[in-house]
Amino acid sequence: MTSEAQRRIEEQLTAEVVASFARTPDPRLKELMESLVRHLHSFIREVRLTEAEWTRAIEFLTAAGNITDDKRQEFILLSDVLGASMQTIAVNNEAYRDATEATVFGPFFVEDSPMVGNGGDIAAGAAGTPCWVSGTVRDTDGNPIAGARIEAWEADEDGFYDVQYTDGRVSGRGHLFSEDDGSYAFWGVTPTPYPIPHDGPVGAMLDAADRSPMRAAHLHFMVTAPGFRTLVTHIFVDGDPQLEIGDSVFGVKSSLVKQFVSQPPGTPTPNDRALGDKPWTSARFDIVLAPS
Amino acid sequence: MTSEAQRRIEEQLTAEVVASFARTPDPRLKELMESLVRHLHSFIREVRLTEAEWTRAIEFLTAAGNITDDKRQEFILLSDVLGASMQTIAVNNEAYRDATEATVFGPFFVEDSPMVGNGGDIAAGAAGTPCWVSGTVRDTDGNPIAGARIEAWEADEDGFYDVQYTDGRVSGRGHLFSEDDGSYAFWGVTPTPYPIPHDGPVGAMLDAADRSPMRAAHLHFMVTAPGFRTLVTHIFVDGDPQLEIGDSVFGVKSSLVKQFVSQPPGTPTPNDRALGDKPWTSARFDIVLAPS
Repeated sequence: MTSEAQRRIEEQLTAEVVASFARTPDPRLKELMESLVRHLHSFIREVRLTEAEWTRAIEFLTAAGNITDDKRQEFILLSDVLGASMQTIAVNNEAYRDATEATVFGPFFVEDSPMVGNGGDIAAGAAGTPCWVSGTVRDTDGNPIAGARIEAWEADEDGFYDVQYTDGRVSGRGHLFSEDDGSYAFWGVTPTPYPIPHDGPVGAMLDAADRSPMRAAHLHFMVTAPGFRTLVTHIFVDGDPQLEIGDSVFGVKSSLVKQFVSQPPGTPTPNDRALGDKPWTSARFDIVLAPS
Repeated sequence: MTSEAQRRIEEQLTAEVVASFARTPDPRLKELMESLVRHLHSFIREVRLTEAEWTRAIEFLTAAGNITDDKRQEFILLSDVLGASMQTIAVNNEAYRDATEATVFGPFFVEDSPMVGNGGDIAAGAAGTPCWVSGTVRDTDGNPIAGARIEAWEADEDGFYDVQYTDGRVSGRGHLFSEDDGSYAFWGVTPTPYPIPHDGPVGAMLDAADRSPMRAAHLHFMVTAPGFRTLVTHIFVDGDPQLEIGDSVFGVKSSLVKQFVSQPPGTPTPNDRALGDKPWTSARFDIVLAPS
């Protein structure tokens, strides 16, 4: 449909815009802008973007800007639901042999979490079914890594992180260190699915695409040890229906889906924690760190 | 550098995000989102976007959102300086034989401009060197088009359109109709270069790229006639140094660069307008409309 003359006009325009960045002093900025222009123009040309659609895109970005403030970040949500956040994580955490895969960091990590120690409880009162998480930290040759710092954080069963509470209390987060044999274990709560904020333009976009705003249930990990690549990841819950429906930010990797085994009320706990008539679950997560 | 396993992970992620739009009820929205995701991911993968660069991009969009209000539209400026506006215009105004080329509409058109008639003065007091613009309106077979509506609008010599004045007066805009032989003519002012608003994040980006915020001097036209494609375009000023430096929004096409011939003080004017000891210029713009 597009004539040769028209194709030339469009290509020439792209070349002209790319050339406008030729004098950019920072070579990396130059590379980024030139590539951005090429891909942006390719998109417009491929879909033959109409002027009305261009206007709608400007309105969408304007609305995203309007709703964004100190507490709400609609541009991060946009990046998340378009998979741009996860693709950025992917290119910065290249697969290495059998090392554990990375996933999104998310906005809810907090520095200086409480030290709970091995066998301790990160829940600290967060509502939910208690969950015993245990495993080992090893290198890609199978050798145990002692003293690896394990940060864990998660939402309560209502889908809220402590930083979303109004009373300032700390719960659902903590850190511990692996033992000499690489082993670690802690109590938390069994993860449940929750929605990303979806009352803004990104939520409207998900609606228009018949997409769910829900995240698959997950528990966050950040594992650091000298000489190893820092691992930022989650574990997901085998059997969570949201895994089938789809995680709204594309964080799921099959290697990170773990069984959370139901333990009926009265089942003895691994470290004799008294749970009365409460059920609990147990999950195993063996962590393999890549060399740095 | 990128391993085959890594490439597969990245491709699979893109495929997963594209698939998340599979149930979008509106087929055009589905097409747009799928293509947007593919191009966005290609960009991230091609440049191996770092997590720090991703954060900087989020900060940039947030700052653009913050400065945008009823009077300032940073996202349109962003689209303009990346050539996205002009590429959108290009795909919607495909080249047709010898028809006059289109360029950006810009934000300064106003409905219901004064009717000045052939030989009239659109300047209406706008500061600048008077300029006599004349030409014909024809079809692509060379036949004159009578009664074509010609809208013309422009900034004054200080770079301001009337809508940027604080006193509400109307100047630098007007309309007229072509005669039976297709001819038209009007007085305006000789166009001069002016900057796009550059005190925000888009201006900072232009600075970082050693790019000028200036637009090449231009005079806007919109020409409509029944049975013909509406033409939105500018004429530019041959010899304007900004043509070499570059138009900040990429609106220039060589076919639209016209000679504005200097006429020394005292040179008789085409319609006996008394200009005293003022110099003036004259420019010719023959317009060819494509069939609709």
